[in-house]
Amino acid sequence: MTKQLDPQRKEYLKRDFGQGFPKDIGLIVLDAAWGKFETVLEIQPRHSQQDGFVHAGVLATMADHTMGYAAYTVAPLNGRILTIEYKINYLRPAKGKQLYCLGQVVKPGKSVIPCRAEIFSRDQDRESMLCAVALGTMTSVPEEKLS
Amino acid sequence: MTKQLDPQRKEYLKRDFGQGFPKDIGLIVLDAAWGKFETVLEIQPRHSQQDGFVHAGVLATMADHTMGYAAYTVAPLNGRILTIEYKINYLRPAKGKQLYCLGQVVKPGKSVIPCRAEIFSRDQDRESMLCAVALGTMTSVPEEKLS
Amino acid sequence: MTKQLDPQRKEYLKRDFGQGFPKDIGLIVLDAAWGKFETVLEIQPRHSQQDGFVHAGVLATMADHTMGYAAYTVAPLNGRILTIEYKINYLRPAKGKQLYCLGQVVKPGKSVIPCRAEIFSRDQDRESMLCAVALGTMTSVPEEKLS
Amino acid sequence: MTKQLDPQRKEYLKRDFGQGFPKDIGLIVLDAAWGKFETVLEIQPRHSQQDGFVHAGVLATMADHTMGYAAYTVAPLNGRILTIEYKINYLRPAKGKQLYCLGQVVKPGKSVIPCRAEIFSRDQDRESMLCAVALGTMTSVPEEKLS
Repeated sequence: MTKQLDPQRKEYLKRDFGQGFPKDIGLIVLDAAWGKFETVLEIQPRHSQQDGFVHAGVLATMADHTMGYAAYTVAPLNGRILTIEYKINYLRPAKGKQLYCLGQVVKPGKSVIPCRAEIFSRDQDRESMLCAVALGTMTSVPEEKLS
Repeated sequence: MTKQLDPQRKEYLKRDFGQGFPKDIGLIVLDAAWGKFETVLEIQPRHSQQDGFVHAGVLATMADHTMGYAAYTVAPLNGRILTIEYKINYLRPAKGKQLYCLGQVVKPGKSVIPCRAEIFSRDQDRESMLCAVALGTMTSVPEEKLS
Repeated sequence: MTKQLDPQRKEYLKRDFGQGFPKDIGLIVLDAAWGKFETVLEIQPRHSQQDGFVHAGVLATMADHTMGYAAYTVAPLNGRILTIEYKINYLRPAKGKQLYCLGQVVKPGKSVIPCRAEIFSRDQDRESMLCAVALGTMTSVPEEKLS
Repeated sequence: MTKQLDPQRKEYLKRDFGQGFPKDIGLIVLDAAWGKFETVLEIQPRHSQQDGFVHAGVLATMADHTMGYAAYTVAPLNGRILTIEYKINYLRPAKGKQLYCLGQVVKPGKSVIPCRAEIFSRDQDRESMLCAVALGTMTSVPEEKLS
């Protein structure tokens, strides 16, 4: 995976990333490269579950969207990415100031694009902790087939 | 799975369900029984992804939280449920008025509780469509071990 | 899912099922219908893991192959089924005389075919016990693209 | 994960690994370290599926058993490892001379031990190719609770 992501494509994907539900929960792009997307989320009280940790659904959304845009970086320009499926393991309760997610393409297939993600929690005075790992399958669908 | 869910426990779980992130996105309880939780979500514009469908993360949150509370119905009273992991398959883009989720315990284990969920989209003039299926593993942790 | 499986197609799939690794471990077809395959396996000492239970890999093979042939029943005649991925939960150690597996298509898609499977252990003097559940994704690939 | 695996424990685990079903299919240990197991399998005709590739169940067995023994390297001495669940993605049809699997512990928990595995196919005249990736959850159960 040593290909370059076209700078214009990168700017387009970074803009396209931040809309709808991911924007609503505060997910933002840190960086992108060919086969790779990095995102961060400032933890807010509304992200919590019943015991005060970040809700598993927030981490799933972060993993899903970050893997999806990693898939966009290797997909045809007219392709829209849809999630076929993923699996996520929660390693420890997520808490602190910020979450960081690295999404990576495992194999840049034409229509089926397996991806993985890792989510770390970050705090000022503690080292970052791996909170969740995901493994999933994205698919690239030609834009005209979506409507 | 023919046991009864204690009515007081049921009321407690229905209240406990609706806080934090699930409340923030509008997830509400429809009904609960031993080994089973049913929830609904009115689809809002803020739930969407980049192509106008409901974001995969919204469906994951719904599946996760509904499975988690199904697990609560079979867990010890002093146990708090945490998600170990789950896997979710997206069958078709979710859209319409409302989502309905049925979460069920697959095996009521003492500490490890496998669960499954199905999510349907509902519209006034169309029959309900199966949009996503999930299979996951919850764990019951004694409350005093969480803090 | 009320379509009929053509009787000739059914005979073809039952024969095609029993070759290679599944034949090697003793997996046999019980019945087939549109969207559905049923298989059995007589438990042998060579199927065991280090503590005397049936090895997780035997159950995975059974779930995979049964889901795959369930997918064949809904796929185009010139399509060959490949496994994209699956997830399997082990509910209790499998032991006894025989395993039974029911594989079902969740949604009969054109190229992406999500499936699920349940495996039960059966013994003469005990009721059958659910040992494993799986959820996976099969794909139908035109035969000419495989070589 | 910089701990050392006790040499005696390593020898015990390498012996314990090669019995039952994994031995039956020809799976052998290459090396082991704390949190890590490496295994190989010479591909045989009996491992094949209906189109001549290695059966998905063979790769699942290899991933499962290798992750399981990676879990053993971090588990208490009196603990026996059972598979709670895993998910495996098949990236390309596996063929050639040999398969190599690297299994690693993602987090060395006390009772719940998430693991991952990668399987590569190797051939004399081609570079090794990533064929499958898995993500799963093992559990360590005290030996006396198994019988």
